[in-house]
Amino acid sequence: MGLLAGIKSPEDVRRLTPDQTVALADEIRQFLVNEVSRTGGHLGPNLGVVELTIALHRVFSSPRDALVFDTGHQAYVHKLLTGRQDFSALRKQGGLSGYPSRAESEHDVVENSHASTALSWADGIAKAHQVKGEHDRTVVAVIGDGALTGGMAWEALNNIAACERRLVIVVNDNGRSYSPTIGGLANHLDTLRTTRGYEQFLDWGKRTLHRSGAPGRFAYGWLHGLKKGLKDVVAPQGMFEDLGIKYIGPIDGHDESAMEHALRRARAYGGPVIVHAITEKGRGYSPAEQDVADRFHAVGQIHPETGLPVAPSRFGWTSVFADEIVRIGRRRPDVVAITAAMLHPVGLAPFQEAFPDRTFDVGIAEQHAATSAAGMAFAGLHPVVAVYATFLNRAFDQVLMDVALHKAGVTFVLDRAGITGDDGASHNGMWDMAMLRIVPGLRLAAPRDEPTLRAALNEAVDVDDAPTVVRYPKGALVDAIPAVSELDGVDVVARHDAGEDGARRVLVVGVGSMAGTAMTTGEALAAHGLDVTVASPTWVLPVPAALVKLAGEHDLVVTVEDGVVDGGVGSMLAQRAGEQGVTTPQVHLGLPVQFLDHASRDQITTQMRLTAADATRDALAALALL
Amino acid sequence: MGLLAGIKSPEDVRRLTPDQTVALADEIRQFLVNEVSRTGGHLGPNLGVVELTIALHRVFSSPRDALVFDTGHQAYVHKLLTGRQDFSALRKQGGLSGYPSRAESEHDVVENSHASTALSWADGIAKAHQVKGEHDRTVVAVIGDGALTGGMAWEALNNIAACERRLVIVVNDNGRSYSPTIGGLANHLDTLRTTRGYEQFLDWGKRTLHRSGAPGRFAYGWLHGLKKGLKDVVAPQGMFEDLGIKYIGPIDGHDESAMEHALRRARAYGGPVIVHAITEKGRGYSPAEQDVADRFHAVGQIHPETGLPVAPSRFGWTSVFADEIVRIGRRRPDVVAITAAMLHPVGLAPFQEAFPDRTFDVGIAEQHAATSAAGMAFAGLHPVVAVYATFLNRAFDQVLMDVALHKAGVTFVLDRAGITGDDGASHNGMWDMAMLRIVPGLRLAAPRDEPTLRAALNEAVDVDDAPTVVRYPKGALVDAIPAVSELDGVDVVARHDAGEDGARRVLVVGVGSMAGTAMTTGEALAAHGLDVTVASPTWVLPVPAALVKLAGEHDLVVTVEDGVVDGGVGSMLAQRAGEQGVTTPQVHLGLPVQFLDHASRDQITTQMRLTAADATRDALAALALL
Repeated sequence: MGLLAGIKSPEDVRRLTPDQTVALADEIRQFLVNEVSRTGGHLGPNLGVVELTIALHRVFSSPRDALVFDTGHQAYVHKLLTGRQDFSALRKQGGLSGYPSRAESEHDVVENSHASTALSWADGIAKAHQVKGEHDRTVVAVIGDGALTGGMAWEALNNIAACERRLVIVVNDNGRSYSPTIGGLANHLDTLRTTRGYEQFLDWGKRTLHRSGAPGRFAYGWLHGLKKGLKDVVAPQGMFEDLGIKYIGPIDGHDESAMEHALRRARAYGGPVIVHAITEKGRGYSPAEQDVADRFHAVGQIHPETGLPVAPSRFGWTSVFADEIVRIGRRRPDVVAITAAMLHPVGLAPFQEAFPDRTFDVGIAEQHAATSAAGMAFAGLHPVVAVYATFLNRAFDQVLMDVALHKAGVTFVLDRAGITGDDGASHNGMWDMAMLRIVPGLRLAAPRDEPTLRAALNEAVDVDDAPTVVRYPKGALVDAIPAVSELDGVDVVARHDAGEDGARRVLVVGVGSMAGTAMTTGEALAAHGLDVTVASPTWVLPVPAALVKLAGEHDLVVTVEDGVVDGGVGSMLAQRAGEQGVTTPQVHLGLPVQFLDHASRDQITTQMRLTAADATRDALAALALL
Repeated sequence: MGLLAGIKSPEDVRRLTPDQTVALADEIRQFLVNEVSRTGGHLGPNLGVVELTIALHRVFSSPRDALVFDTGHQAYVHKLLTGRQDFSALRKQGGLSGYPSRAESEHDVVENSHASTALSWADGIAKAHQVKGEHDRTVVAVIGDGALTGGMAWEALNNIAACERRLVIVVNDNGRSYSPTIGGLANHLDTLRTTRGYEQFLDWGKRTLHRSGAPGRFAYGWLHGLKKGLKDVVAPQGMFEDLGIKYIGPIDGHDESAMEHALRRARAYGGPVIVHAITEKGRGYSPAEQDVADRFHAVGQIHPETGLPVAPSRFGWTSVFADEIVRIGRRRPDVVAITAAMLHPVGLAPFQEAFPDRTFDVGIAEQHAATSAAGMAFAGLHPVVAVYATFLNRAFDQVLMDVALHKAGVTFVLDRAGITGDDGASHNGMWDMAMLRIVPGLRLAAPRDEPTLRAALNEAVDVDDAPTVVRYPKGALVDAIPAVSELDGVDVVARHDAGEDGARRVLVVGVGSMAGTAMTTGEALAAHGLDVTVASPTWVLPVPAALVKLAGEHDLVVTVEDGVVDGGVGSMLAQRAGEQGVTTPQVHLGLPVQFLDHASRDQITTQMRLTAADATRDALAALALL
């Protein structure tokens, strides 16, 4: 690890000889496999951008030239080259973030992990440079081929193409982003990739002419004619040039000196340029290279030699969905599945295997997922859109104006809802309930365990005149929590009878996966001599009438949810109760309206006062005031 | 009006002779000018699609072939040809909607007026046809060149290109949608438009060969060679074909028989096809043709001969913003303005005139508007993004994850907030406050009149570490409502002292333009012998501490707002009050979580119980319960 240890800042990278950069790349790969296998993280994407990132830092001068990474999970190499080499607590509280972080370094710009934003950021920064007359600064955006399928990228390309600002777009084309990229763009990139590039042809021409000793001006004229005439024959004129963005490529993204050469040309051009780099996700680590489906996109702790996971599956909830949606598909031929480039992570692979013609991967395109689902519902199908909770934010307008306004029977399945923790602020699925409560007609289920998840999915696909949502967290499944009784659709999962007249009565409501916390809270309150009912309604939006009724039969209501508390289920219950003259005081536990730093789910739960101990304390304090 | 009156359904359109279709087009133009000048409406766009719509109904069989209109405001001709010819109450309660409406006709599919959705709808419907084995049905989407700049359109194109489904995209290219279209796509369309089309060249070749009497197979071979060889010479290979979508055009969209011919070819092809039609917005109506800026996109009542408005400006609030933002621009060289293809409607034209280099029209691309603004803020500017309130829904994720997460000083100015009324369900700007309340750090102002609007704008651009929002309604300005006192930033606009000890005290809070309603409510309550304070806080999110304090000093709080009441300012005040032990009962008036049918603002206010009489009645009822 001789070279890497000597890199304290990008200047050190620029000082290396070409041979040293090759050695550095090897060291970095070794480092990534060793470190990330211990902590978990986005291994595959970072192994794919080692040479590309070295080349970026040798050609451009960060932070004066802003380097913007799309999605951000491929910034580990960038971190290593900008003075951050302690990966021991990667993605852990107090350790390095798994994404760029302005708090960590002046070299980081965008922290958001949602895809397809980098080009918009870059366009904005370039426009600012222009307004401020800083004409010597270049902005560089690094974006995957998958992220180019997102609508935002198109909006940005359209703007970038319109003016001559110093902006370089590096397309990190591994042909698979999360999984093999689909769509017309992918086919087009494929064409560019497999055509013997006319740039290469020109380079050959230049070399030949140079050797032939032809005088400069003659050579130029010859080259110019060659270029103009052969362009459409040797390589298809790309759509990027149709838009007005110069295209350089394809370049072997693992050939550092070729990358440097292309980037220097792009930098010298002075206007918007696309550099098309071909990379391999997981490059240089054979377990990743052999993983056809996923290329070790994101891993937990693994054995570095074999790549096998250290711990058992972290995605119990996803597995249940994966299983149940296939059963539903068997009994309901009208049910189709939609994913936004996340077939495997959201658990739709078995459905695709069973029903390939009824599975649609739309690319990283949540807006299109929602609206095309509305179209399918209009034409008689029942689409199930499976997506991470945080990414549904991208399609809020479409859920509202296309699905709900048109009374379309579409089911949204939100994986990774609530606190996800180690992926940082933008991955937490904490916004869904507060956001979706204002969508007319929408019904949302937050199942607490495997049986309620299976039931909720089946109930959701039976609703054909409104959007339905089923949300569940990341992480291992909990043991089933059976209902002890049921009141008009609201499960009561525990009753503690104080055994004496006049005991104060407390209703504890656990939303979804917080049912366990509610159970523990109930036990603690019962130990204080209180009469306790613990309710776990699967369908929480709109708030069930039975829950309002239950609230009226108690002296205090405590709600616990893993979404933002402002505008969440608790506040909704309070509002409905107030309208119906139910004045029982309520205490609402949930997440405050703030962004959460990366940490484990448990750490965040403790920090944000979402444990049973917190709920118990708050309940007792509220009772003391009555 | 002989022909039009005889059209009861699309079959009648198909029965016309070619000459009759020309006459029908003339009749329709006359009808549109006469009728829309009386009612107001989207005159320009509909005058541009007369022949195109006639051709659509002659070639395709709606509703078996679904016709999907993007944005929907150009569906008047479609309505006329599908049995809806009573335009006397267009956009009025009980009359025809200004958009497609499923309640009106089985020929209508998409009611949403938000741009760029049609291709996603069409892709969904085509996928459903495929799943269901209905291979003889074609889906047609009609989309403007402007709407193609929206990201959703790109997401959809990428999906449409990937498979061979029967889907025809008619690009209604008037080169200006709302205003002259900008960006790389516009340049590309321009190239296609001005190049002598190779399709035309081929047609000439076919005619020539036919006349020469060459045998069929020979002609085919010759044509094929010609086509292959000349394609890249006569016309640039368009980006659509790069993606894998067949391109036909450009076609003169006002030549009905040419349109029919192109559509029949597209229909016969069987896979995804783009038909590029060149049209003129406002075609055939000289006042519109001469209006360079806007082409009579949407008009109020006008004099049909002159095109001059009957009533004075309907956009008083917009004018104040237009004026103040220029003043701000003068004193603050770092302030820049962004519009999503709505330079004139949102009032940014004077700013552009004063500061052309600091004005950015990004196309119909709200996502890019928000995120590029975050990029500009990162690089030291203060962007002001002016947009209709309902369209900010499109950028919720970007406001949250790009602007707020990165603590970017970006000001969003939301025009047409609250009830807009006659444009129907999807235009009402009623979602903003409930949606934005969960954005960490965001501050939202709802000014009540001209002075508070000017003040709020100046305060907003002074915030450099968080998103700020200023929202105001459509419609005429009200007279200024001066504050009688001020409590830590909360204006009190009226105090009614009952003059006797022990009188019940009511706090009435009017949010933004509901201040007038709050004033009237205050007077009515005072007449009942109550002590009344009427507050009008300009900054309502987060709820000002002073408002909570005021609430604590009264016996009842009544809030009135023109957004959804669930999760609105009132509910936020109740939550904050509850947390601080302020238990004053509250009554919240606002809009229910439902979509509003088109009607006037006053009609909706009455229907939704948002008048001073409603507020008074509810307040008295609540007091009776105390």
